[in-house]
Amino acid sequence: MSVDTAAEADAAAQAAADLVEDGMWVGLGTGSTVAHLLPAIAERKRAIRCVATSPRTEERARRLSIDVEPFANVDRLDLAIDGADQIAPNGWLMKGGGAAHTREKLVAITAERFVVIADSTKLIACLHGPVPVELLAFGIGSTMRRLGTVALRDVPRSPDSGVIADVDCALDAPGAAASWFSGIPGVVEHGLFPPEMVTMALVGRAGAVDRLTFGPVLP
Amino acid sequence: MSVDTAAEADAAAQAAADLVEDGMWVGLGTGSTVAHLLPAIAERKRAIRCVATSPRTEERARRLSIDVEPFANVDRLDLAIDGADQIAPNGWLMKGGGAAHTREKLVAITAERFVVIADSTKLIACLHGPVPVELLAFGIGSTMRRLGTVALRDVPRSPDSGVIADVDCALDAPGAAASWFSGIPGVVEHGLFPPEMVTMALVGRAGAVDRLTFGPVLP
Repeated sequence: MSVDTAAEADAAAQAAADLVEDGMWVGLGTGSTVAHLLPAIAERKRAIRCVATSPRTEERARRLSIDVEPFANVDRLDLAIDGADQIAPNGWLMKGGGAAHTREKLVAITAERFVVIADSTKLIACLHGPVPVELLAFGIGSTMRRLGTVALRDVPRSPDSGVIADVDCALDAPGAAASWFSGIPGVVEHGLFPPEMVTMALVGRAGAVDRLTFGPVLP
Repeated sequence: MSVDTAAEADAAAQAAADLVEDGMWVGLGTGSTVAHLLPAIAERKRAIRCVATSPRTEERARRLSIDVEPFANVDRLDLAIDGADQIAPNGWLMKGGGAAHTREKLVAITAERFVVIADSTKLIACLHGPVPVELLAFGIGSTMRRLGTVALRDVPRSPDSGVIADVDCALDAPGAAASWFSGIPGVVEHGLFPPEMVTMALVGRAGAVDRLTFGPVLP
């Protein structure tokens, strides 16, 4: 039986849009699942202010008459909603397929509640590489050598002028991998999101939506 | 007795310039001590190629007819020479007073040998804050809230479009502080340099130059 991922993504997006209430500051993710979220939020006509994790989300949201504000002066959000490329059972996420993971992580970590929306194919037994990273262009040859097996992605610079690449590395201990990436000069941000950032995952599955929460943090 | 810091810095710079040999790729730091280094290197007329850690070092070096190449495609350097704001007895450095620490760290870590030059006032018993950081402008209000006591510096954006700030934090365990900064989304780079990056410090003192090396890494 084939999975209708679009229907699953839409069901997850609708469930997430139901969490949006008048007066909230809301962070809007980026990607194909968020493409379902934006009209779902717009339809509900809540009085909200949003920040966007990418220029394309900002543009789409504005076209739907969603109020998007600059993020520079906002230091808390009530809710952020975003997709993920992979969701592990222990709550670790892999993001960055859409090259927006730096801004996505900054928005996620600023929100009181970060809700992940996904179709059921995004739930996987354990994270697998490559890991998306954003790198400084200055010294990128040196940074790539220190990262090991790296492929530069054929996409424009990020809105923060970084270069997007994918790194092959072991992920049996995502926390150790995350620390390793964070400690490498030249790495602006990596696509591993720890469980403690994630309030809940809403995962569409065969006409229903599973609500997953993640217990005490595993290493 | 007052310390002639300019004479000490110049002595350290001259000793470092003596390490430069024909054929080398050399990384050039930024700051007041490096201002002594550049003419010292130029005088020796070695056939070298350099990368610069800041636009102002690049400009000064070019005016002295030092060959400066873009860093993007260079993945190793023979030698990098730079100043430091503070040098602790265990080899930890504090850098970033000149707002160039991100590029300085990338150049230092790329070099086979990283040599620090300083006058004797830079040797201190233990590092003290604030710690210079470079932050992403996106979400900077949120990042500053997570960093605690932060002062934005009144300087232009970095050449990598980051915002320079100074963070008050405990530094009795610099390794823990460095990991903490590295793990905070929105922090592009911090000004703490670990001893394992440092091959040697050349410190001018009363007409002589002390050569300091640092033993097994302390936490």
